[in-house]
Amino acid sequence: MYLKSRLPREMNRKMNSFDLNSYILYKRKQIDGALEEILGHTSNPSRLINAMKHSLMAGGKRLRPILCITAAEAVEGKTDDVVRAACALEMIHTYSLIHDDLPAMDNDNLRRGQPTCHVAFDEATAILAGDALLTLAFEILSSMELTNKNHALKWLRVVNTIATAAGYKSLIEGQMRDMAAEDILLSLENLEEMHALKTGALIEASIITGAILGDGSLEQIEKLKIYARNIGLAFQVTDDILNVEGDPAVMGKDVGTDQTHKKSTYPSILGIEKSKEFARKLVNNALQSLDCFDNKSDPLRAIAHYIVERKR
Amino acid sequence: MYLKSRLPREMNRKMNSFDLNSYILYKRKQIDGALEEILGHTSNPSRLINAMKHSLMAGGKRLRPILCITAAEAVEGKTDDVVRAACALEMIHTYSLIHDDLPAMDNDNLRRGQPTCHVAFDEATAILAGDALLTLAFEILSSMELTNKNHALKWLRVVNTIATAAGYKSLIEGQMRDMAAEDILLSLENLEEMHALKTGALIEASIITGAILGDGSLEQIEKLKIYARNIGLAFQVTDDILNVEGDPAVMGKDVGTDQTHKKSTYPSILGIEKSKEFARKLVNNALQSLDCFDNKSDPLRAIAHYIVERKR
Repeated sequence: MYLKSRLPREMNRKMNSFDLNSYILYKRKQIDGALEEILGHTSNPSRLINAMKHSLMAGGKRLRPILCITAAEAVEGKTDDVVRAACALEMIHTYSLIHDDLPAMDNDNLRRGQPTCHVAFDEATAILAGDALLTLAFEILSSMELTNKNHALKWLRVVNTIATAAGYKSLIEGQMRDMAAEDILLSLENLEEMHALKTGALIEASIITGAILGDGSLEQIEKLKIYARNIGLAFQVTDDILNVEGDPAVMGKDVGTDQTHKKSTYPSILGIEKSKEFARKLVNNALQSLDCFDNKSDPLRAIAHYIVERKR
Repeated sequence: MYLKSRLPREMNRKMNSFDLNSYILYKRKQIDGALEEILGHTSNPSRLINAMKHSLMAGGKRLRPILCITAAEAVEGKTDDVVRAACALEMIHTYSLIHDDLPAMDNDNLRRGQPTCHVAFDEATAILAGDALLTLAFEILSSMELTNKNHALKWLRVVNTIATAAGYKSLIEGQMRDMAAEDILLSLENLEEMHALKTGALIEASIITGAILGDGSLEQIEKLKIYARNIGLAFQVTDDILNVEGDPAVMGKDVGTDQTHKKSTYPSILGIEKSKEFARKLVNNALQSLDCFDNKSDPLRAIAHYIVERKR
């Protein structure tokens, strides 16, 4: 008991010596560079490629690819080995945003301060640009190491991990449930399940992908799964809290929209204080799961703190 | 020269002893059974699964999966090894039809005599059902042989072959060009390129997939590529011809629609007789490419004939 309750504070102390902002900026640049390289070789890009780039290069947080690379580093893998997989994960995340924003779904006009894909281009092009990013993810996941049998096995596992997380039992079913849940009061259990499907599964797959490509042990992968599930949910709980008490100027978007749209959220079900307590508990669970890792997992620890402490 | 000109007739003779109809019916049943098995395990299927099944089980020709299995057999591979890859190819074909039929694209209400996915369900569900079939294809392509290094390499090559053919440089770019070509007169070269992208690439990938999984030699794969390119284009030329002089009762759909919509087609550019001649030439090219194969490739020969002789 003593050890368990002491753990988070120890982690906190360790984190002070680690500059997460610089780390994230550096990784983001690396990922953006790799994404540019994959899509940027055409001197006269097609309308389709321009639409793919419009959404892919619109300046996202790059949380999933960073988690992928950071997990690989935690098991002592090298960044170079996983950066293409990290790009594939960002492509799949971006495709899901393009399709979610469509008029037939959330009908959003702005994303990351820029016109959504169907507004900047047209609906048909946006549907196809999403399709193309999803397909390109699997093309680049399978394009390396085609002559190395040991590596082929790892990459095939990665394809399977990501396709399962992005598929009809996870991410896409999550979006179906999110749409069906409009104006309906969800139970805490149903809310948690929806988030686990819609965002949790791909966050978990990002971390597992890094661990597989970094040659993590089965035990390490199991621990990282626990980490992933906890920070994935903590991320969503914090999103809900920021929608209640965030600063619109800092967030760059309106707050209070969940209440306006009568969305079931953690604050609407648990209240704001219990939601914050729940988020902290999730982060502590995540930190404890990293107990058996050395300081190479410091970035993962810092990201867990960042996820609940962020202001936007 | 003598050998070359004699070849098609010889093939014709061989074909008389081969019952293509029974062969296709048998394979179709095998593929439909495998597709049912993949999607059919839930006693209480979600709306998403029902939408995926609606389009996937609507009774298509199953040309791509049959070609995949038939190519594997031509290089002496076993059907059991490739049937899941064949299913993945049909899923990708079906996803592309669901998205092409959407109101933002071709806005079609009927497909194979049944309401299109967005009519039977709704637009959002149809977009997500398409996404889900595309993603499931890659899930099942990577779900086998995860412990066998030799097999992993083959399956990773298959993932790459199919993702490339279905991606932004092929199938999806073909659909972009098809939409852009409405009311525009295309040159023969542009028409051929559009078809090579939109339908040719996935037909070629189907055949190559079968050959890879059936352990075909590099030389065999090269020959099968030539076969694939020729029958892929012959299929499209014949479609155009049937749209001019097909029997609506036999076809189960209207004819003359290409002319009404001012679409560039082979008959509109070459005239009907030269189009027929061109289709026959393509089939002869396809048959010649099978010269080095034994009678295990008889089904491929029969399919080449069927593609231009069909009445619907």
